Amino acid sequence: MTDARRRLLAEFLDAVWSRGEIDRSGEFVAANYAILHDPGDPWEGRTLDLPGFKERVRLSRAPFPDQRFDVQQMFDSEDGVAVTWLWSGTHLGDVPGFPATGRRITMSGATAYRFDDAGRLSGHWQVTDRLGVFRQLQAR
Amino acid sequence: MTDARRRLLAEFLDAVWSRGEIDRSGEFVAANYAILHDPGDPWEGRTLDLPGFKERVRLSRAPFPDQRFDVQQMFDSEDGVAVTWLWSGTHLGDVPGFPATGRRITMSGATAYRFDDAGRLSGHWQVTDRLGVFRQLQAR
Repeated sequence: MTDARRRLLAEFLDAVWSRGEIDRSGEFVAANYAILHDPGDPWEGRTLDLPGFKERVRLSRAPFPDQRFDVQQMFDSEDGVAVTWLWSGTHLGDVPGFPATGRRITMSGATAYRFDDAGRLSGHWQVTDRLGVFRQLQAR
Repeated sequence: MTDARRRLLAEFLDAVWSRGEIDRSGEFVAANYAILHDPGDPWEGRTLDLPGFKERVRLSRAPFPDQRFDVQQMFDSEDGVAVTWLWSGTHLGDVPGFPATGRRITMSGATAYRFDDAGRLSGHWQVTDRLGVFRQLQAR
């Protein structure tokens, strides 16, 4: 169970978030996906259906189309997997308040994913170092 | 093993960080404690001995003496435990750039702790929502 969850999560992060294969989201994500905690995420507190989830990924990836998540470690619980990660991407599209700079931006974060009984991702609780990102975007 | 680690970590967060029983640090922390990743932490990248660890806790707690960590979830790996948490504290002492405001400040974060073979904490990898804290301190 634990290994299957870790494999699914690693493939999800690589395919959907890093490579942008958004149409594959249904292989990984449950019919309802809850954004339980994610400061700064416009969808925080909402539960998304699959089209809504795909739209969130599409809009989130747009400013950084070559973005990449590098998993640092995974941890297991009864109903979930937590992952620590490093992220990088080139700022090629506008972010609210920050027109595209062309800069290479880096970020770190940790995400606790929940799985449903069918082994699909049903939500997450996440913290990212968004202050670090803002400082890189603001630098002159 | 897993239960023992979780119990030690819960007691460490409650006793040392929330209640400020800094002299008990040696019950929980190894002789060398590595701050592997912790954006914004002045000790990031350093390995501390026990006196150094106690000094870090003392200085970190000083601006928020009633601070409290509330554990949300724990997750296990081969050599560690990851924990998601909410934090709150009253801003009663100065932070660089922010003289004491008397405000109640809240924060969230996730920390991946490492354990040594003796079952003590030997380091951490952490991300906190420090942008959220800065916005609360800066609000007028």
